[in-house]
Amino acid sequence: MDAHLVEVTRGGRVESSHMGSAIVVDADGAVLFQAGDIEAPVFTRSAIKALLALPLVETGAADRLGLSDAELALACASHVGEPIHAQTAASMLRKAGQDPGCLECGIHWPTSRAGQRALFETGQEPSALHNNCSGKHAGFVCLACDNGDALAGYVRPEHAVMRKVTEAAADMTGANMDAGNRAIDGCSIPTYAIPLRSLAYGFARFGTGAGLHPDRARAATRLRRAVAANPVLVAGEGRFDTRLMQAFGLSVFSKMGAEGMHVVSLPEQGLGIAVKCSDGASRAAEVVIAALVARSIEATPEQYALLDGCMRPSLRNWNGIEVGELRPAPAFAQDKQGAG
Amino acid sequence: MDAHLVEVTRGGRVESSHMGSAIVVDADGAVLFQAGDIEAPVFTRSAIKALLALPLVETGAADRLGLSDAELALACASHVGEPIHAQTAASMLRKAGQDPGCLECGIHWPTSRAGQRALFETGQEPSALHNNCSGKHAGFVCLACDNGDALAGYVRPEHAVMRKVTEAAADMTGANMDAGNRAIDGCSIPTYAIPLRSLAYGFARFGTGAGLHPDRARAATRLRRAVAANPVLVAGEGRFDTRLMQAFGLSVFSKMGAEGMHVVSLPEQGLGIAVKCSDGASRAAEVVIAALVARSIEATPEQYALLDGCMRPSLRNWNGIEVGELRPAPAFAQDKQGAG
Repeated sequence: MDAHLVEVTRGGRVESSHMGSAIVVDADGAVLFQAGDIEAPVFTRSAIKALLALPLVETGAADRLGLSDAELALACASHVGEPIHAQTAASMLRKAGQDPGCLECGIHWPTSRAGQRALFETGQEPSALHNNCSGKHAGFVCLACDNGDALAGYVRPEHAVMRKVTEAAADMTGANMDAGNRAIDGCSIPTYAIPLRSLAYGFARFGTGAGLHPDRARAATRLRRAVAANPVLVAGEGRFDTRLMQAFGLSVFSKMGAEGMHVVSLPEQGLGIAVKCSDGASRAAEVVIAALVARSIEATPEQYALLDGCMRPSLRNWNGIEVGELRPAPAFAQDKQGAG
Repeated sequence: MDAHLVEVTRGGRVESSHMGSAIVVDADGAVLFQAGDIEAPVFTRSAIKALLALPLVETGAADRLGLSDAELALACASHVGEPIHAQTAASMLRKAGQDPGCLECGIHWPTSRAGQRALFETGQEPSALHNNCSGKHAGFVCLACDNGDALAGYVRPEHAVMRKVTEAAADMTGANMDAGNRAIDGCSIPTYAIPLRSLAYGFARFGTGAGLHPDRARAATRLRRAVAANPVLVAGEGRFDTRLMQAFGLSVFSKMGAEGMHVVSLPEQGLGIAVKCSDGASRAAEVVIAALVARSIEATPEQYALLDGCMRPSLRNWNGIEVGELRPAPAFAQDKQGAG
């Protein structure tokens, strides 16, 4: 059963509402908070990207190719196609001796105004570099080239690169990832439906390194540092994940995924958080993530103010008039206090 | 209680799902189909625009100002800011002796690529003409100017224009619209929370003219003809409402609203349809509208093919690979057959 997670109000009435599930778990697997069904399989989508990036670092490929922290952050990103995102992906490919023609993620227009403007003003069409997953794919290309694998078909489940990154994600989450729970993601790589609990557990371990091989624990730390140092690269100017990590630095790793997925790793508390909004709405997943981070972390007044704003974002119309807000649903908010 | 309306699948599994309510009613108020709570008040948002446009026509203002069918269609529109939309709104204002500076809808970027491109390529910033509600607002300005009302503050509930259009909408739907159920819409005019049943009833009457004053019945017919002749103006190239009305002409009037609202009027069957997706998702409301139109209307094979495609749109990723689909939820689909 889904839990009632978020309300959207207008003029004091509830206009819309969002259901879903949410969990906070520690690196031993102990559940500290849950709402909704945390065992039902959900497609992790882009929320799992950082776990897929582990082999790029732990194999030594990133070092051998001289990838920068900005490039490692982009390997974990769902970006909005700003010029810096496209340029960073292109740079990763150059280091692997490749060009954008090798990317198998497909092409879409940048979702940011800055990215659109850059193309319109120069009369260019978008390329695979503007795909929100171009950094992840450039990372796969780097991993394949470093290992001498043939590139073509690297998005297929049976390709050496995809087997390597899937194995890392399955190991981190403890979840099964095979043909039985597989589907195709927006960028054509496999995505697997796993329990929300497993996903959160994977990100608790991503933060603490507990029980991981030392190479993997070091890789996780390096990726978290790379992202914390480059929060604009992992999402984009003004976006939720970027704002959160600009405010919290290494203390909060946050990553959205399509269809209302979201994960957080809190390394200092040793916790992983995962949310699935059942209707796929990211606006609701962000409210829940902000609420769960606020109840899990020690923060400065400025950091709490940011979380409060993300927990109860006011809705303003085109004239800037406040017409309503998003807020945690009463049951969810109460749960939060009861456990506080 | 909300009903389970739509499923979103990926690789054969349900990835996301949408709840809400839906109704088909005739012009006598008899309910032919219902799912979910049809009495709970919902904000009608832009789904009600055509009813708000009635006074512009029935008072004779549209004729006195020489408004074209394209301009009347735009008065009922939520458009995507293509050049034709902005130009048509500007033309309405000129006929009222006004310029875009009088619009009180606020400014936002066009949501269509064509509209964005037109601005970027000429180095322009968006104006109120690009607001998706600019045609409705231009219609309000025409109504005010024709009647000699002062323009400033025309979006306020107490302004003569807003009282006139609200009275028309309340009369058509039979629903109360006052300070007790009022909030502010995205474009700053009032929006009222009324039963979904009332909204559908209003659009059944909009189609048949049953029980309406002859001036109003004529105005409704004129608006439906204007929209049917200009389906691109009421939404935009490739959008759901536009495609439906391009295929069905005068036989289907269809209009979306924000937060998962949607209405349809089927004049030949004497039916009104209204849907509210409780999480606010338009993708789900469109599936339900297509399913309810399909069960309510006699259509050609080409028209059925369009409805089928809208009822079960396949989801394709950036490489064009089919990764899943949207479809009516099993309970909803069964209901449909049971009543067919």
